[in-house]
Amino acid sequence: MAERDFIAARLAPLATSAAARCLADDAAVWAPPLGRDLVLTHDVLACGVHYLPDDPPADVAWKLLAVNLSDLAAMGAVPAGVLLGLALSTAEDDAWRADFTTGLGRALARWNVALWGGDTTSGISAAVLGLTAIGHVPPGAALARSGAHVGDDVWVSGSIGDAGLGLAIARGEAPADKFLLNRFRRPEPRLALGLALRGIATAAMDVSDGVLIDADRLARASGVALEITLSQLPLSPAAAARTPADDAGRLARATAGDDYELLFTAPPGAEVAGLAGGLPLTRIGRVIPGLGVRALGGNGADVTPKRLGWEHI
Amino acid sequence: MAERDFIAARLAPLATSAAARCLADDAAVWAPPLGRDLVLTHDVLACGVHYLPDDPPADVAWKLLAVNLSDLAAMGAVPAGVLLGLALSTAEDDAWRADFTTGLGRALARWNVALWGGDTTSGISAAVLGLTAIGHVPPGAALARSGAHVGDDVWVSGSIGDAGLGLAIARGEAPADKFLLNRFRRPEPRLALGLALRGIATAAMDVSDGVLIDADRLARASGVALEITLSQLPLSPAAAARTPADDAGRLARATAGDDYELLFTAPPGAEVAGLAGGLPLTRIGRVIPGLGVRALGGNGADVTPKRLGWEHI
Repeated sequence: MAERDFIAARLAPLATSAAARCLADDAAVWAPPLGRDLVLTHDVLACGVHYLPDDPPADVAWKLLAVNLSDLAAMGAVPAGVLLGLALSTAEDDAWRADFTTGLGRALARWNVALWGGDTTSGISAAVLGLTAIGHVPPGAALARSGAHVGDDVWVSGSIGDAGLGLAIARGEAPADKFLLNRFRRPEPRLALGLALRGIATAAMDVSDGVLIDADRLARASGVALEITLSQLPLSPAAAARTPADDAGRLARATAGDDYELLFTAPPGAEVAGLAGGLPLTRIGRVIPGLGVRALGGNGADVTPKRLGWEHI
Repeated sequence: MAERDFIAARLAPLATSAAARCLADDAAVWAPPLGRDLVLTHDVLACGVHYLPDDPPADVAWKLLAVNLSDLAAMGAVPAGVLLGLALSTAEDDAWRADFTTGLGRALARWNVALWGGDTTSGISAAVLGLTAIGHVPPGAALARSGAHVGDDVWVSGSIGDAGLGLAIARGEAPADKFLLNRFRRPEPRLALGLALRGIATAAMDVSDGVLIDADRLARASGVALEITLSQLPLSPAAAARTPADDAGRLARATAGDDYELLFTAPPGAEVAGLAGGLPLTRIGRVIPGLGVRALGGNGADVTPKRLGWEHI
C-alpha cells in the first residue's frame, strides 16, 4: 500500500477533529482553549530499542501514545491532540499497519485525544515512531521536577518494577505472566492523578527509566536529595512473587524502567491518599539535604547502587 | 558521548526560551499568544531517503527545520517553536552531532524560532530525524489547499526544479553547481510570502514533491483543475542552462521535488506582484473546471505525464 493510500485508508479515518482538516493540508489548525498554558512533548519509540519487533502492533501504538501522555500527566496537563511521525520499514507490512492504526484509534479514544496530523515515510531499515502530544494547564499550574523541598515526603503511584519483569517475559527470558507483560506493553498514563496533583505536589515526573534514576533527576532538578526506603517500594503481587525479599531483590525493581508511574513530592500532611481514585499511592521516602538519590536498605544502611536505572548511551 | 551529555552540552544551550525550561522537565510549557489559531506540523527526514549520508550535518539540520517551516509558510503562519525527535545511529558520531547542533542553532536564529524540547535516542541503524513546528495565525486566517476557484490564476514563488538538479549533483550524477546544490540542501521556507498571502490567496501549499504533483493535490482539495503552462515555469539561470528548451526538458523540472516554493491561487487582478519583496512570483497557469492537473506544452497541447512527481511508496 502506497503512503498516500495508507494515510487515506488508515490514518484519515482517525483524524476526525476539525483541527486535522481531514489531513488534507500542510499542517493542522487548532484554536487552543483561551488563557491556558500549553504543555508540549515529543517522545520516540524505536523498534529494537524501545519495543521488540514482534510486539503486537496495537500494543506498540498504545505505548507510543501512552509514553507521551505520561509526560503530560507528569506536568498536570489535560491532553488535547497529537501529531504522528511514522518512519516504517518493509517489516511494517499492510497487516502490521492495519493493526497499528486500529490500536492507535482505540488508544486515542481511550484518552479522548485527537489525531491532528503528522508524516509517514517508508523505506527505513527499522521502524522509528515519533509522537508529539500537546495538552494544557491553567496559567502557571504546570508541575515541574524542580520544586521539592527538604522535609517533603516522596510518593509514587501504582507499583514499581512490573514493566522490567514484563520486558524479560517479552524477550522470552522469564516465565509468562499476562499482568506483567501487559504492564510493559500497555502502560497507563496517570492523567487523572497528574491533574489532582496540581497545587499539592511540590515536584513531579514520570518514572520511565527506573524509580532510582528518576528520583535522582528530580532531586538534582530541585537541588535536594531524595532518600528512598527500598522496603516501602510498592510491588504488585505478581512482581513480589518474583522478587527476593532482600535489598538486591528490591534494587532490581527500583532500577528497571518503563513503569510510567508518577513520582512526586508533597509536604508532610498533604492530603494525598485519596487523590488517585482506586490507584494506590505509596510514601516511599523523604526529601533531605544533599544532592541526588539515596537508597536505604533493610537495615537502614545506604545501599545506593552505581547503576541507578536505564541510562541512554 | 552519552545522550544525557549530548543533550546537556549541545541541545540545552539552544533551548534558551522560558518554554523549554532548560530541557529539565518532562515537557515544555508555552503560553500561546491570546486569541490566535495554532498551526502544527511534523515532518520526518530519514537518512538515505530524504538526505544523503554524506550531506553536511549543518545542512541536514537546516533542511529539517526548513521543510517544517515551509509547511507553516504554506498556511500563512508565524513560527514560534519546535520539538525535535532525533533517532541516531553510530554514523552520527560526536563530530556529526556537534556540526548538526551548530547548524540547528543557526537555522533557529535565522528564523527566530525557539527550541522547546524533544527526545534523543541512539542505537538506530540509520538516522531518522523528526521535527514538530508550531506557529500561529489570526483566527480563521490560515491558508488551505481547498479554496481555489475556477478563473483564479495559479502562481508560484522563486524558481522550479533547482533542488532536483541539486540532488543529482549531491549524488555525483551531474556536474557541480554551488547554487543548485544549495537549493537542494538548504531550502528557504517562504515565511514572509505566506504571511503576505493571507486574505489574498484563495488556496496555497508548498512544493515539496514537484510542482505538477502538488498542483494536482491542490486541485483535488479544491475540486477544480489546475492548468499549468510549462513555458511559464520560472527557471533559475543555472537550471535553464541544464534544461532543454522543449516540453520534455520543462517536464523534468516540473516533476522534481524539494523546491519548497509556494504554489498558490489568487483571483485575476489580485495585487500579487510586490507581495514577496525581492522574491519573484510567476503566474504559471489558471484554474479551470475539472479535477486534477493539466500540463500544457509549447504548442498548447496537453502533455501531462503519467508520473507527476515524487510519489511516496
